Amino acid sequence: MDKICYEPIGIIHSPFDKPQGMPIQSLGAKNVSGSVEIFPQYAEALKDLEGFSHIVLIYYFHLSNGYDLQVVPFLDDVPRGLFSTRAPRRPNPIGLSIVQLNRVQGTTLFISDIDAVDKTPLLDIKPYIPSLNPKGKIRVGWLERNWGRFSQKHADGRFVS
Amino acid sequence: MDKICYEPIGIIHSPFDKPQGMPIQSLGAKNVSGSVEIFPQYAEALKDLEGFSHIVLIYYFHLSNGYDLQVVPFLDDVPRGLFSTRAPRRPNPIGLSIVQLNRVQGTTLFISDIDAVDKTPLLDIKPYIPSLNPKGKIRVGWLERNWGRFSQKHADGRFVS
Repeated sequence: MDKICYEPIGIIHSPFDKPQGMPIQSLGAKNVSGSVEIFPQYAEALKDLEGFSHIVLIYYFHLSNGYDLQVVPFLDDVPRGLFSTRAPRRPNPIGLSIVQLNRVQGTTLFISDIDAVDKTPLLDIKPYIPSLNPKGKIRVGWLERNWGRFSQKHADGRFVS
Repeated sequence: MDKICYEPIGIIHSPFDKPQGMPIQSLGAKNVSGSVEIFPQYAEALKDLEGFSHIVLIYYFHLSNGYDLQVVPFLDDVPRGLFSTRAPRRPNPIGLSIVQLNRVQGTTLFISDIDAVDKTPLLDIKPYIPSLNPKGKIRVGWLERNWGRFSQKHADGRFVS
């Protein structure tokens, strides 16, 4: 099938200049401040965004290179199928973070809880709408018994190559 | 900046052969059954996925063409900034749905709550992990007073061109 090509709509800025030592997921990045610089041609598309307290950022894992079909996740000791993990080295290196939107000033979004590396190319912004989340019992597979490890863990560079 | 190119990892199958009349978001697609056919070279990456009751599908809005910086959303009557909406016509047409994963059989995922059109090219799968959702007060901007319209609405094709 043909390739699907995108172009960045902006750049994410964060305090993390490399993946090593970064928080794992935005939950581990609580209160980490950053910003998103949207390219000026999209300024008008930012109208109404400030009404949302949280936004979904979809971005390119630009430092990721290649992938393995199974990986040992940060929160486990045994290999897991890649699609059951959030590892950045994926067939299509696309990242997804829900961040807090504090303020919009011109084409700059001031955000918190950002877990992406500095200079990450942004592909899309969507409003975060909690009503769209599934209700009822949710199972989280291999994470079920490993979640307790979360708070102690930071990325160690294993997913960069 | 350079283009970022991806290749589909599979194809989404749903009962919707065109966007007109489709439910808006997976919340409106409750109990709509579909499947995802993952290409065989990624079979091994599906290990452990079945432990998760819900998964995040990231896909290419393949019927979307062009975009406007402001749009009148299905749930409103006035133009809103594109990035404060989930309209499929976007600078980078990337879709995001949380679906229920019922069963994995070989390289076929049987799913419910699917709001994508049939034959949508799949770009990525991530496990849905509710603990990663933000806590506390969430504001949803212009949707706040329009949410009540949700149940009556279906897509009417305005975002296809």
